Amino acid sequence: MSIIDTSLTMTHAWFGVLAGVLALGYALITMMSVLKESMGTPKMKEISEAIQEGAMAYLNKQYKALIPFTGIIFVVLFFVAGAPMSISFLVGAVCSGIAGYIGMNSTTKSNARTTEAARSNGLGKALKISFRAGAVMGLSVAGLGLLGVSSLFLIFQDADVINSFAFGASVIAFFARVGGGIFTKAADVGADLVGKVEAGIPEDDPRNPATIADNVGDNVGDTAGMGADLFESYGATTIAAMILGNSLFGLSGALFPLLVGTIGIIASIIGTFCVRTSENGNPQTALNIGLWTTNILTAVCVFFLSGYIFEAPLSYGITIAIVIGLIVNILIGGITEYYTSGGKRPVNNIIRASETGPATNAIQGLAVGLESAFVPMLVFAAAIFGAYTAAGMAGAEYAIFGIAMAAMGMLSTAGIVVAMDSFGPVADNAGGIAEMADLPPEVREITDKLDSVGNTTAAIAKGFAIGSAALTALALFQAFVDSAAKNANLQASGALDYVDGAYKLIINLNDPLVLIGLFIGGAVPFLVAAFTMKAVGDAAGGMVEEVRRQFREIPGIMEGTGKPDYARCVSIATGAAISKMIPPGIVAVACPLIVGFGLGVKAMAGFLCGLTVTGVLLALFLSNAGGAWDNAKKWIEANGGKKTADGQPNPAHQAAVIGDTIGDPCKDTAGPAMNPLIKVAGTIALIIVPFLMF
Amino acid sequence: MSIIDTSLTMTHAWFGVLAGVLALGYALITMMSVLKESMGTPKMKEISEAIQEGAMAYLNKQYKALIPFTGIIFVVLFFVAGAPMSISFLVGAVCSGIAGYIGMNSTTKSNARTTEAARSNGLGKALKISFRAGAVMGLSVAGLGLLGVSSLFLIFQDADVINSFAFGASVIAFFARVGGGIFTKAADVGADLVGKVEAGIPEDDPRNPATIADNVGDNVGDTAGMGADLFESYGATTIAAMILGNSLFGLSGALFPLLVGTIGIIASIIGTFCVRTSENGNPQTALNIGLWTTNILTAVCVFFLSGYIFEAPLSYGITIAIVIGLIVNILIGGITEYYTSGGKRPVNNIIRASETGPATNAIQGLAVGLESAFVPMLVFAAAIFGAYTAAGMAGAEYAIFGIAMAAMGMLSTAGIVVAMDSFGPVADNAGGIAEMADLPPEVREITDKLDSVGNTTAAIAKGFAIGSAALTALALFQAFVDSAAKNANLQASGALDYVDGAYKLIINLNDPLVLIGLFIGGAVPFLVAAFTMKAVGDAAGGMVEEVRRQFREIPGIMEGTGKPDYARCVSIATGAAISKMIPPGIVAVACPLIVGFGLGVKAMAGFLCGLTVTGVLLALFLSNAGGAWDNAKKWIEANGGKKTADGQPNPAHQAAVIGDTIGDPCKDTAGPAMNPLIKVAGTIALIIVPFLMF
Repeated sequence: MSIIDTSLTMTHAWFGVLAGVLALGYALITMMSVLKESMGTPKMKEISEAIQEGAMAYLNKQYKALIPFTGIIFVVLFFVAGAPMSISFLVGAVCSGIAGYIGMNSTTKSNARTTEAARSNGLGKALKISFRAGAVMGLSVAGLGLLGVSSLFLIFQDADVINSFAFGASVIAFFARVGGGIFTKAADVGADLVGKVEAGIPEDDPRNPATIADNVGDNVGDTAGMGADLFESYGATTIAAMILGNSLFGLSGALFPLLVGTIGIIASIIGTFCVRTSENGNPQTALNIGLWTTNILTAVCVFFLSGYIFEAPLSYGITIAIVIGLIVNILIGGITEYYTSGGKRPVNNIIRASETGPATNAIQGLAVGLESAFVPMLVFAAAIFGAYTAAGMAGAEYAIFGIAMAAMGMLSTAGIVVAMDSFGPVADNAGGIAEMADLPPEVREITDKLDSVGNTTAAIAKGFAIGSAALTALALFQAFVDSAAKNANLQASGALDYVDGAYKLIINLNDPLVLIGLFIGGAVPFLVAAFTMKAVGDAAGGMVEEVRRQFREIPGIMEGTGKPDYARCVSIATGAAISKMIPPGIVAVACPLIVGFGLGVKAMAGFLCGLTVTGVLLALFLSNAGGAWDNAKKWIEANGGKKTADGQPNPAHQAAVIGDTIGDPCKDTAGPAMNPLIKVAGTIALIIVPFLMF
Repeated sequence: MSIIDTSLTMTHAWFGVLAGVLALGYALITMMSVLKESMGTPKMKEISEAIQEGAMAYLNKQYKALIPFTGIIFVVLFFVAGAPMSISFLVGAVCSGIAGYIGMNSTTKSNARTTEAARSNGLGKALKISFRAGAVMGLSVAGLGLLGVSSLFLIFQDADVINSFAFGASVIAFFARVGGGIFTKAADVGADLVGKVEAGIPEDDPRNPATIADNVGDNVGDTAGMGADLFESYGATTIAAMILGNSLFGLSGALFPLLVGTIGIIASIIGTFCVRTSENGNPQTALNIGLWTTNILTAVCVFFLSGYIFEAPLSYGITIAIVIGLIVNILIGGITEYYTSGGKRPVNNIIRASETGPATNAIQGLAVGLESAFVPMLVFAAAIFGAYTAAGMAGAEYAIFGIAMAAMGMLSTAGIVVAMDSFGPVADNAGGIAEMADLPPEVREITDKLDSVGNTTAAIAKGFAIGSAALTALALFQAFVDSAAKNANLQASGALDYVDGAYKLIINLNDPLVLIGLFIGGAVPFLVAAFTMKAVGDAAGGMVEEVRRQFREIPGIMEGTGKPDYARCVSIATGAAISKMIPPGIVAVACPLIVGFGLGVKAMAGFLCGLTVTGVLLALFLSNAGGAWDNAKKWIEANGGKKTADGQPNPAHQAAVIGDTIGDPCKDTAGPAMNPLIKVAGTIALIIVPFLMF
């Protein structure tokens, strides 16, 4: 009995190309419609342009700094692995870069337009513009991902060769995450410590020299960093699924992930149409409708697609696995929201602890972060089990396809999830511009409403990024195990077992090499987190000194007559980010190479598992602790807790501000760095596995 | 060729009994010599008795609270696993309790005597008394451990049956660590927040109602908790090594670990004789000489012992594995010291970051803690590889004995390591008594000198506790895998593989159940750490309110005319510790049971590995971050940084105090809880493995 329709041909890969082009075309039209809107007063325009200039300057420097790094890898790949792999690597890196440029361009060009819409038209239009800007980013990420993978597959016709596309994407993503994370938090912490705490001026006050850098940071961290992260997950998952699909089912199996991606993109575009709200409507509801539309459409279409390609019960199993991915997305988002939202138990604990000072605030924040890592791991465990079991219904050999399908399911909706996430920084910037341009408070009220929704969607997107990284890493791991079994050196060296007439990589935890790999892999995320936390601490210190210097040396700065040197702060943050992203980058790339070539394929497998477990745990811990601290502070502020009854600064609020600052590098630098870290290791493992000797 | 001398008989187990009795006798004589010393002025006596009373009251309540818990386990074990297992469990729990009582009695009865020696005789005698008090604890721990295991082995003659001794010890250890950790930090944080920060009175000021509770806490946390922790490692490692030895070599293999323990105890006693210093001597040097004497003696004697029992090259391999354990001890101690000592780069970074406030101080502290977890994991990886390879020289089947031998080597010196650690709280208390009894500053100078050495030895002991927990967990894991292969149910259910004519448990990371176990196991330490951090935060909040109430309501308290209600603070800390140690205890015991019986033997194996990796990482991260914060504050204080040049409180010092307080529950509650957590899981796994059905 055939379990798969083998009539699919290479032509079907064109669906992926077309869907990619469709997504990019939709992004282009959307962008043009946004650009038609007014940017408001000259002052608003000026601020927006300063932010855009800073963001683009940063992005240029970041990519320029990466040219030698990617160049070396390209050359090494060319000579060691051949032209197709090196070209795939370059296409992955360049596509990631293009996605970053498009996204950054769209969000930085929409911030003042959103402010202006809030000023002249109100909430509905402000949501429309800011969400459209996000959609440009979201669909560029998904579109470029699918277009890149599909085109390379059409050209080289070999899933195993194009896996370096994911490696290219992951290298760029790592640096975008780490560099962007250092930039944004150096600027934020520096601006807050001197501006808010020492000088007592509010957030986004134009007198603060670091305020433009702070707003630039929102874009380079939250937009470009997150976009690159999800672009990488998208590419890596698709390719891992293609490799496994090809290995199990031949060409049709390799094409299936591309067709799922096609469905996801179309569903995402339809979903974006559903995001609209009236003047008194709830923007969160509008976004939720868009997301649910996409999820349901994807699930339904996938059901028919797998019914068309696979025989029952395999078709059901694959559909279930994909739906599991969609459910993981919703659950992780909900858990993240629970642990990081004001009004819920965890954040309430932090708020209460603020009464006894910054130390107890920090202790409770750490406790919340640590606790928040537990339940998502159970969700992942359940998803692994469910996806495995579902895909294995038709035969044990298909089980490993399940996790890759769950990851595909989750990532197929990346278009709309990135759109929802990128909308946050636009709303945040729009509020900053309203403040800096001295617009009436009603404008700020509207942008604040959008911004607070943006914080929720950012939490959901963070959960999405972590969850998808976890599933992607597992899919890459499965592809790694699958590829290892085909390596003739490993067959000869005895690293593989010969079971039932075939070679198999058995990774026995009782094997000391596997255990060693597990220990080393488990430790690497701690080192990378340490490097990135320290980088923010150091860079923020430099920013503090620069802002203090400007306050001291520029006459009339506090009275608003002297103009702060914004560009100098942007350039300090840029310099720090670029120089400090290199050491963790070297760790991320060198560790898997050393373990793989030095300790062999079994240690490498243990390494990948250890890295994934602690990487995901640290990502959850750090991101959620930071989010909870942030929202504890916001809740106190929103409930009039800035001052005590007699008008003095409230010590509980000051404690919460300290907690929020501690959380800044946790949630926006070290935490997010974990996602690309585990994927870099996975993609490297997949690339080097054919060259391992033992 | 026989690889082992099989002429050893059960009689040789009497060596273990005799060495245990010798250690206890030595402890008794030492204690009596300490008790002969003067306790000083009536005031000193009164304070010391208050501390002792509080500590004993806490210990009584803690053990009483555990009676139902241990009773239930005893009954369940009796009916499910039979009388020998339930009796072994009880003996383990009771021995751990006795060790706790002896240690607590000795340290709390020596504090005032140390103060008095410092007052009347000087540094040399003060070191002698405080170290002797520690030695009582150290040799009681090792002596009771070896005596208990040897006696049970003589009675039941079956290593597999007495493994519940380790389970009994581990349950008590978990609660002693968690309860003691909550007590000590609730008292410490509460005392500091109101006393030092709000009321501006110094540490250990008798006007602070929480000061006795704080001093009690030093004993219940650092002495009783650490003692129970190492007692458990000692018992669990010895038994795991006996099980593996028995399985590989028969009776002689089971006896070998007992003989190694015998050597370690004699070497530790000799080592304690070498700890002496003159008036101007360096106490650290004296302690180091004692430790090195023990290490070298142990290594030499073990070389001859294994040469006597095993053929070469196996005898060399086993000696090397044991020496690796001794080296791990030294390396981990050194690394811990590097990351947590003032004057070294990591702590200097925290000191510098304190200049820009508590937030940057906290960020750098977290970075230091995260980074400090990396290198020790490489040390563990190297130790695993080295021990495995060394023991495997004579044949691959002996390799798994290596890790157990490395753990044995490390723990054989527990007697002197615990002595060095327990000396710290005595010196700390002695300083507190000097302060509270208004003794001249020269006395405090001497006790401060001892206390600062105590901080270093505490760091070394913390590294020892974590390292030994890691190796113990791995030894338990090996014993678990070994036992699983003998389970007939597992043989029948297909959970085992039949390889080369024998059943084997192969834990393939590519098996979804193993992966699920790994994910769940990896997450549990985060949950337990969260519970314990939160417990301290909450309990400290209650303590703050009580101290504030006393300051408000007791007339003349600040002038020294009104007497604070010390007992009430002790009782609040006790209540909080007892009630809040239960939930994490339930998690620690329930999770391995649920995974084992619910998901089967393969998930259980993955669970143990995941738990060990993240448990050890979190232990290192939390303990070292806390230690580094603590010493950053101490360094600032020691270098005149409490006040600025114009006599104002120095904001950098205040920031460092906040960092220190954040670190308190990290280093003394959540971090130390990780050690027994991973061992509880390991001992439970070993007990339930014969009952697993799949």
